[in-house]
Amino acid sequence: MKKKMNECVSRLKVIPLGGLEQIGMNITAFEYEDSIIVVDCGLAFPADDMLGIDLVIPDVTYLKDNIDKVKGFVITHGHEDHIGALPYVLREVNVPIYATRLTMGIIENKFKEHDLLKGTKRKVVKFGQSINLGQFRVEFIRTNHSIVDAAALAIYSPAGVVIHTGDFKVDYTPVFGDAIDLQRFAELGKKGVLALMCDSTNAERPGFTPSEKTVGKTFDNLFEEHKNSRIFVATFASNVDRVQQIINTAYKFGKKVCVEGRSMVSIIETARNLECLHIPDNTLIEIDQMKNYPDDQQVIITTGSQGESMAALSRMATGMHRKITIGAGDTVIFSSNPIPGNEKSVTKIINELLRKGADVIFQDAHVSGHACQEEIKLLYTLIQPKYAIPVHGEYKHLKAQAKIAENLGIDKENIFILSSGDVIELDETSATVTGKVQTGGILVDGLGVGDVGNVVLRDRQHLAEDGIMIVVMSLDAYSGQLVAGPDIVSRGFVYVKESDELIEEARSVVDEAVQKCLDRGVTDWGKLKNATKDALSEFVWRKTKRRPMILPIIMEV
Amino acid sequence: MKKKMNECVSRLKVIPLGGLEQIGMNITAFEYEDSIIVVDCGLAFPADDMLGIDLVIPDVTYLKDNIDKVKGFVITHGHEDHIGALPYVLREVNVPIYATRLTMGIIENKFKEHDLLKGTKRKVVKFGQSINLGQFRVEFIRTNHSIVDAAALAIYSPAGVVIHTGDFKVDYTPVFGDAIDLQRFAELGKKGVLALMCDSTNAERPGFTPSEKTVGKTFDNLFEEHKNSRIFVATFASNVDRVQQIINTAYKFGKKVCVEGRSMVSIIETARNLECLHIPDNTLIEIDQMKNYPDDQQVIITTGSQGESMAALSRMATGMHRKITIGAGDTVIFSSNPIPGNEKSVTKIINELLRKGADVIFQDAHVSGHACQEEIKLLYTLIQPKYAIPVHGEYKHLKAQAKIAENLGIDKENIFILSSGDVIELDETSATVTGKVQTGGILVDGLGVGDVGNVVLRDRQHLAEDGIMIVVMSLDAYSGQLVAGPDIVSRGFVYVKESDELIEEARSVVDEAVQKCLDRGVTDWGKLKNATKDALSEFVWRKTKRRPMILPIIMEV
Repeated sequence: MKKKMNECVSRLKVIPLGGLEQIGMNITAFEYEDSIIVVDCGLAFPADDMLGIDLVIPDVTYLKDNIDKVKGFVITHGHEDHIGALPYVLREVNVPIYATRLTMGIIENKFKEHDLLKGTKRKVVKFGQSINLGQFRVEFIRTNHSIVDAAALAIYSPAGVVIHTGDFKVDYTPVFGDAIDLQRFAELGKKGVLALMCDSTNAERPGFTPSEKTVGKTFDNLFEEHKNSRIFVATFASNVDRVQQIINTAYKFGKKVCVEGRSMVSIIETARNLECLHIPDNTLIEIDQMKNYPDDQQVIITTGSQGESMAALSRMATGMHRKITIGAGDTVIFSSNPIPGNEKSVTKIINELLRKGADVIFQDAHVSGHACQEEIKLLYTLIQPKYAIPVHGEYKHLKAQAKIAENLGIDKENIFILSSGDVIELDETSATVTGKVQTGGILVDGLGVGDVGNVVLRDRQHLAEDGIMIVVMSLDAYSGQLVAGPDIVSRGFVYVKESDELIEEARSVVDEAVQKCLDRGVTDWGKLKNATKDALSEFVWRKTKRRPMILPIIMEV
Repeated sequence: MKKKMNECVSRLKVIPLGGLEQIGMNITAFEYEDSIIVVDCGLAFPADDMLGIDLVIPDVTYLKDNIDKVKGFVITHGHEDHIGALPYVLREVNVPIYATRLTMGIIENKFKEHDLLKGTKRKVVKFGQSINLGQFRVEFIRTNHSIVDAAALAIYSPAGVVIHTGDFKVDYTPVFGDAIDLQRFAELGKKGVLALMCDSTNAERPGFTPSEKTVGKTFDNLFEEHKNSRIFVATFASNVDRVQQIINTAYKFGKKVCVEGRSMVSIIETARNLECLHIPDNTLIEIDQMKNYPDDQQVIITTGSQGESMAALSRMATGMHRKITIGAGDTVIFSSNPIPGNEKSVTKIINELLRKGADVIFQDAHVSGHACQEEIKLLYTLIQPKYAIPVHGEYKHLKAQAKIAENLGIDKENIFILSSGDVIELDETSATVTGKVQTGGILVDGLGVGDVGNVVLRDRQHLAEDGIMIVVMSLDAYSGQLVAGPDIVSRGFVYVKESDELIEEARSVVDEAVQKCLDRGVTDWGKLKNATKDALSEFVWRKTKRRPMILPIIMEV
């Protein structure tokens, strides 16, 4: 009997529900018997072909189908790609959320906007503290990242311990708080860790990511060099440490600091309330007070480092900002790198700033928040996991980390590059991908969640490419004969005022096609519409080599 | 009398008609009294917001208005951003074209496609040779670039000599032909050069661009390292030297070479006919012969290095190619850098290739074709121009070169960062921007040249964002009363099958608004349409926070 029971001991299931096919939308379920916990719940920004889409959230059908098992969300840190889908997912999977202090502060800001503060359970967890969730225990371990209060998670299950790093880097001299808790990773490694799920974002880059503090020194030098000008620093809203360093340098140089950009103002306020950010008295000023100080005493920290056209920096550069205009004599420091895909919009704003006469500094004022190869090696070496499951990154990043793990001596068959939806079952003796659950991206457009799918997107792409031609006609309900039209209205196809002839010709083509049908006694609207489409699209292609969407509408009177 | 005439001696006008606000669309007019010559005639690729546009060509109204003066086009090299608009512009400004051998070969390929070979005059010019064009003489000077037969131009006018570098780099050990003719630049500089118009593309980069030959060594190493696999090399179709080096290395390793991608096949054929490319016997094979050789004897040179979804590399990676599929065991070398804006599509194809099991090499197998800072300094120092007019690049690049020129001792007021359309007048005593001519980009979409303008683009952007709702209704011609509709048809807005209720509600909203108008005796269709638009857009925004295009159509029966 005993033996039988031992044989039946369950394996741990790890199920990434997103985050492995793209950057963003990080969410992973851990399941052991009757318990499920979920690490992170992020959103993704829409791909280029997702026209008009605001954001993408994960399909959590698996969690909804197993709602009785789900014990809670454990969150690694407060970036959108790790928390952004919570307001949407919580409406369907309303379980408690566990996170460190600043992470929870940012989540609560979000929930306030979505009117979700009342109906949700949230618990702040300290580093070193563990929480029990069904058959799981989860310990929050301090790491470093480009946002304060980032945590790795040690997930204890009866089948063994999994360490999930979240996004991390190794910073021996962080700006706020302590360095990553390497000792704890070593201790856990010594005891035995089943699997390591480690951040792959920078796995292609050799060496170490420099300390955030090095950026502070750069600011000191740049402020010295440009001490006679008004200084703008553009950076990511959530990088509280970066903001802290800009403030420190500004204070050193006796300058006042003004913060522009809604998201940045909000996060700074939260961080300040939680004492993650220390601003000396009389340093922060409101935008309206700026006129009281000479230019060389002003520092403006702003959003828009990615060239976003609606962000404060763009508006200040193009003269669309109601209070500040950047011009000759100003210095603009980009304390950021372009996120892949944003290169062109960042270049555009740089050109604009230079054209306005500003000095633009685009180098050395940024460090990454992700571990490079040597840091990844360090973590593997401390933790010595049996299995490696690279996470966070595109396929090439996961593959690069897999190579690192292999070089460090982890058996090739113990390294798993998973796809979203894969169910991997692990215990001390083996690990196998045993199944697949439903996953995918759900598109959010305005208030609509999931009401824009492939059909609508395809239509948008078609409309974007060559516009639309609408053919309307009225048929007599009794005789079936044309009583009005066909008329053609187009949008996004050609400039109509200068294409009278083309449109008129198109109208006759359609007219002829419709009459031919009606003369043959065709009354089926479907056939009539198809005849219209065929005749018009053939004509338009021949004349213009374009394929606008053609939409015949028949009215019965 | 003599004095008077001297005073009247004309100045040289330089008029960039494109190429200064963006990468591409390079075209510059030089005018002296009754003579105009035009340097280059390039196209630009559409910006991200130019939906559905195939390419952009310069507005040459100024040339058309002065057609009697225009003596010819002098072309620096055979890249699209320098020759691509010729087939369109020649239809309106049909003057002779002067270019070096390969450049003309590529132009003629293009003209063949556009059926323009017969009606145009073309003359091949040798390096060192001069041509007389009205009051101008133009000398072609050898340079190096990422395409063979690139030339700088010395433009002699009664007001002085201007040197236009075209795109160039300094390559002491080029793969084909000789190194850039530095002696000639020095000689001209010694005699006195009025102005230098120098390539700015890499003006932000310190140091020297390495020789094209260094890539050959990299190929040797990579082929050695991967000698047991089938090797794919993706590069730019027009980089004949690169293709030559791949072939050289393949031959060294006893491999056969197959070329894939229409544009590459065409340029290779042209280059071979002109003896700019030397392929050892029995090295080039057709795609159908590949099956006769083991994998490790095959090299495939292919287009698609920018991740273009329709290019050969993408099709081979995704299994859409009819003859070749890339998979495990294959090695893919990217001999290219992503052009700004293509980063994401390049990453996408790399992920796809890795996922298929291929080895992907993305480093060190490319060098730029443009001069870095030290090369730019060399040219300025040899030529010692009185005026500097940086060309080829975005504003930040032009600005970077202006800084270099200033550091080399050129008077700040003799350095001109021009905008397209600026007319600058030069002679030995002064240079001033004296006017502005009409310029701009003309959009080409299919067969249409210029029939898509801002109105159509704005409509396409609107349609792309949130789709379209069409409201149709029929009114009785006599009573003015509704006899059918209003009906609503939407595309790209919501998935209609699951939004019955919303659409039905929208219909009643419109119905009510229209009835209210009709009841008040409104018969003006404009007012009726506006009432429809207002009611529907307010309703849709409230319900969905989206703003589809709303298009009311009224029929009279």
